[in-house]
Amino acid sequence: MKSHRKVLTLHLPHRIGFVNITDEVQVAIDESGVQEGLCLVNPMHITASVFVNDDEPGLHRDYERFFETLVPHDPVKQWRHNDTGEDNADAHIKRQLMGREVVVAITKGRLDFGTWERIFYGEWDGRRSKRVLIKILGE
Amino acid sequence: MKSHRKVLTLHLPHRIGFVNITDEVQVAIDESGVQEGLCLVNPMHITASVFVNDDEPGLHRDYERFFETLVPHDPVKQWRHNDTGEDNADAHIKRQLMGREVVVAITKGRLDFGTWERIFYGEWDGRRSKRVLIKILGE
Amino acid sequence: MKSHRKVLTLHLPHRIGFVNITDEVQVAIDESGVQEGLCLVNPMHITASVFVNDDEPGLHRDYERFFETLVPHDPVKQWRHNDTGEDNADAHIKRQLMGREVVVAITKGRLDFGTWERIFYGEWDGRRSKRVLIKILGE
Repeated sequence: MKSHRKVLTLHLPHRIGFVNITDEVQVAIDESGVQEGLCLVNPMHITASVFVNDDEPGLHRDYERFFETLVPHDPVKQWRHNDTGEDNADAHIKRQLMGREVVVAITKGRLDFGTWERIFYGEWDGRRSKRVLIKILGE
Repeated sequence: MKSHRKVLTLHLPHRIGFVNITDEVQVAIDESGVQEGLCLVNPMHITASVFVNDDEPGLHRDYERFFETLVPHDPVKQWRHNDTGEDNADAHIKRQLMGREVVVAITKGRLDFGTWERIFYGEWDGRRSKRVLIKILGE
Repeated sequence: MKSHRKVLTLHLPHRIGFVNITDEVQVAIDESGVQEGLCLVNPMHITASVFVNDDEPGLHRDYERFFETLVPHDPVKQWRHNDTGEDNADAHIKRQLMGREVVVAITKGRLDFGTWERIFYGEWDGRRSKRVLIKILGE
């Protein structure tokens, strides 16, 4: 059995944003030497998501508008978490709705994906550096 | 270590629908010979979900009504993704809320499930064939 | 390859509640002897969630208020699932939005977590005993 660990660091310029990290995950799989296995990808932070969807800018604008309408950042005083001095309660909720992690299959050394599947880092409270963990298990 | 890969193909007649695929996943586990391990089940498409919940038709109607109210298909022009010529932006959002994949435990060669746990394929943009990937890792 | 299985039992006094189970998961990892691997944690019930987020009481009040507003328990007759005699349709929906399971990485025998990551059991239909499955795979 083989395992491999890698950490990516991302720094998004705005509060909300989405970055395609599919290629970086495939590089980690290549480094691992795993041909058949599973790959976990998750932010090491609790106001960000990792998810699989489409690399289409219009969809990302829909995501931003939909989640911001459903879980508004402002007014920050509406959220009890923000009584602690934080202003990111909404980001903790958005991350739960979008999801924390993905587990993806590795087959013959490649991400075992359908035509349009891509892995994204989803930021809900950006403008600072955050880490994404890639953990690979297989042989 | 053993691994096993299987692909199911589903074609749902309506835009939205839910299909119990628990038995098909157990068959794949039987084929794998894995006694102790993990099993990933995910659609290879980005407008569908795999999830674990109850095989109860009333609940499935609640799911359809709840998600359609929260993320309406119509008017399709409300979503920027649909400016590309697609009409399924809502399905990309619904799939994120319901979830992409499940990872389930295999113990003594069986799905290690509570009494009411069942695996479902959730379709948000049907009327065409879609694939579900089952990937099993263990020994 | 090693595997380990453990079941926790929780009984929450109210309909909705959140319990930090991070230490119990680390104990199971210690028992497994796994140094490098993956750990799945999921409720064996379909009206509960396992998720990773912050151990902050204000945030938990935000979660309860947000999800109860979005998916109200009352009136119970609004949900077709409750025509079966149940009153927990809302809990089946809330569990999907919050998520079913987490898969977490094990590195050098420890939960491979960022500073604020904690594992929670999320109850949406409490006042009865429920089980949480921990399944560990690695070596």
